[in-house]
Amino acid sequence: MKKIFLISFITLMICGITSAQFAGLMRGQKVEPLPEGFKPASTNTFISEYPAVNPQTHQAIFRVVAPYAQSVLLQLNGNHEMKKDSNGVWWITTDPLVVGFHYYAILIDSVPVMDRNSRAYFGSNWESSGIEIPEGPEGDYYRFNKNIPHGQIRSIQYWSDINGLERHINVYVPAGYEENTHQRYPVLYLIHGWGEDENGWSIQGHLANIMDGLISSGKAVPMIVVMPDGDIQTNSDVRKASGDITEIYIHDLIPFIDKTFRTYTDREHRAMAGLSRGGFQTTNTVFNNMNKFAWAGAFSGFFGFPRNTTVETAYNGVFKDANAFNKKLKLFYISVGTEEKFPIKKAYEELVNHGIKNLVFFESQGTAHEWLTWRRSLYDFAPRLFR
Amino acid sequence: MKKIFLISFITLMICGITSAQFAGLMRGQKVEPLPEGFKPASTNTFISEYPAVNPQTHQAIFRVVAPYAQSVLLQLNGNHEMKKDSNGVWWITTDPLVVGFHYYAILIDSVPVMDRNSRAYFGSNWESSGIEIPEGPEGDYYRFNKNIPHGQIRSIQYWSDINGLERHINVYVPAGYEENTHQRYPVLYLIHGWGEDENGWSIQGHLANIMDGLISSGKAVPMIVVMPDGDIQTNSDVRKASGDITEIYIHDLIPFIDKTFRTYTDREHRAMAGLSRGGFQTTNTVFNNMNKFAWAGAFSGFFGFPRNTTVETAYNGVFKDANAFNKKLKLFYISVGTEEKFPIKKAYEELVNHGIKNLVFFESQGTAHEWLTWRRSLYDFAPRLFR
Repeated sequence: MKKIFLISFITLMICGITSAQFAGLMRGQKVEPLPEGFKPASTNTFISEYPAVNPQTHQAIFRVVAPYAQSVLLQLNGNHEMKKDSNGVWWITTDPLVVGFHYYAILIDSVPVMDRNSRAYFGSNWESSGIEIPEGPEGDYYRFNKNIPHGQIRSIQYWSDINGLERHINVYVPAGYEENTHQRYPVLYLIHGWGEDENGWSIQGHLANIMDGLISSGKAVPMIVVMPDGDIQTNSDVRKASGDITEIYIHDLIPFIDKTFRTYTDREHRAMAGLSRGGFQTTNTVFNNMNKFAWAGAFSGFFGFPRNTTVETAYNGVFKDANAFNKKLKLFYISVGTEEKFPIKKAYEELVNHGIKNLVFFESQGTAHEWLTWRRSLYDFAPRLFR
Repeated sequence: MKKIFLISFITLMICGITSAQFAGLMRGQKVEPLPEGFKPASTNTFISEYPAVNPQTHQAIFRVVAPYAQSVLLQLNGNHEMKKDSNGVWWITTDPLVVGFHYYAILIDSVPVMDRNSRAYFGSNWESSGIEIPEGPEGDYYRFNKNIPHGQIRSIQYWSDINGLERHINVYVPAGYEENTHQRYPVLYLIHGWGEDENGWSIQGHLANIMDGLISSGKAVPMIVVMPDGDIQTNSDVRKASGDITEIYIHDLIPFIDKTFRTYTDREHRAMAGLSRGGFQTTNTVFNNMNKFAWAGAFSGFFGFPRNTTVETAYNGVFKDANAFNKKLKLFYISVGTEEKFPIKKAYEELVNHGIKNLVFFESQGTAHEWLTWRRSLYDFAPRLFR
């Protein structure tokens, strides 16, 4: 063990952090026993006791070491003042929070920083802090279940001619994919929200756990789920957006997936869905490319029709002849949290009134524009696909 | 586009960041043209111009918005004072840096925080900032090469009986693994360093690019590389270390890998290597389980023998009969950077003097205890395996 500490110490020195500083940080991480009923959040780095959550009350306690700061705020559904103790440590105990995942930040003298105790979750275009509030009686559908077969998430880089760059995607393949070498699978393309990235669904969304459970219980058919990056990144030589994300999905990504995986390649076996801005990308992609997709989902992301269009003219008039549309699209799934103040139900009703069928409208009770809305949406949406 | 901005705005509101704050941040991210010769680091979030690097001089410029701070330091191979301009923005231009990847932090009024402009790289037990200094004439061996076949990194959770918890691993499978359904592969188990995690080799290390290049050029045989977590994590109910990492490797991980992938399961087709503390885990695991491994590597991680042991008694006397050891172990690869001040060469020479063969000692020129040492070590080590 001495050897380990020697190496640790040397590593620290080389990382530019002195041992005295580190000792101070450790004191900030391994502290007095947690208040009764609280435990470290599952989203913490594994050496951090705080933030701590109370699974009964759904409250959280945050702790920030900033001895010289004048003001420290917790940014989590608004700004909340933290209070300094005599050691220069700032504290806050929250009101009860909605279960599921929340992004948060710490504002130290007006500078928003990531909480050192949290793992990083990419959102709002930076590596944000996040906290998971343990679920109540809702069930275990997004937790790891050791008693069922598990799929894999594959991290792949592929070359995009349109982007002129390699692009990173995550691809979920269901349990049995490797063994059933003659089986083909339908594909769901699943897009993250604004400011997030291609890791959002697998990390914040717990996608593998949700899909493993749905597929092993027979609630959903075995499918491949492709999670691309919804932003057009550029390398550091170019560094400016170019091209169009729908073009990349259609002309670079889908051919790559159909070449690389054992997929069914017809439109009846291809779906796309997305959350928030990913829902916008989905409608834009699917309704402009009806020869490629037969299923669509917009989670907290269908706000109506593109600018200067109506139900008659939107997406080159795809809805105009409702009967023709109804024969083509198997499902357009629209969801929203009841605490979101978006006109999503109104947009949905406009489609209903126009005679569009094969619509599902799902309301997530008590949730806002947040990951629990989207985990629930996926859990409700995926079983409806490819049947 | 208006719709996208509406959604972006709403998302921001819900994330608890006001649009005014965000506009300020954006001004902090999209700023005046970069000085000539500089470009955004490839390790930045894709909207961040800074830190900027100069591929010719290997200097970097860092920029931190902290208008109310009294002191801002860059922690990168020591602490370096940044200077405040009239807008409350702090700047520093570094001396030339070693090419490759460096962890860094920003110290604002003594509080170490992650740079908002950097992607997160787990090191020193937190989500650290990182910067990649573009390589010089060394070559492209760790860059993505679009003209060769690519393997996949698979993200998998498996159940560990010893840990009593699911554990996350990354597994590299070479190009062709999926198609060649009757081919079996040797396996390299590759461990990260202290304070890092199972993502270190694939992200900081660029493992897939290195292996794709070595395998496609015929320099290395096609192999599976398993990258486990070298720490015993616990869930938030338990939250304390239990068990022993070598036991997890031997009794939980190896059987899971041999069950899940098409591996050769004999010792001649199984290697383990690790960097820094991962090298210590490697020697501890391999030399105590010689019936399981025939190849070993310690990158910046072989500091001699465990406490109170000698070359005669270390690891239950595995080296004692040098001839017997030489017949069993195909390779013990020991590497170190020339700028590391560790007694690694001395430990290596002790083995040589004792009559141990099949040793390779590799010195990485001009590098310290850092990722370039370990990328080079992998690049030099992997071709020697399984021949």
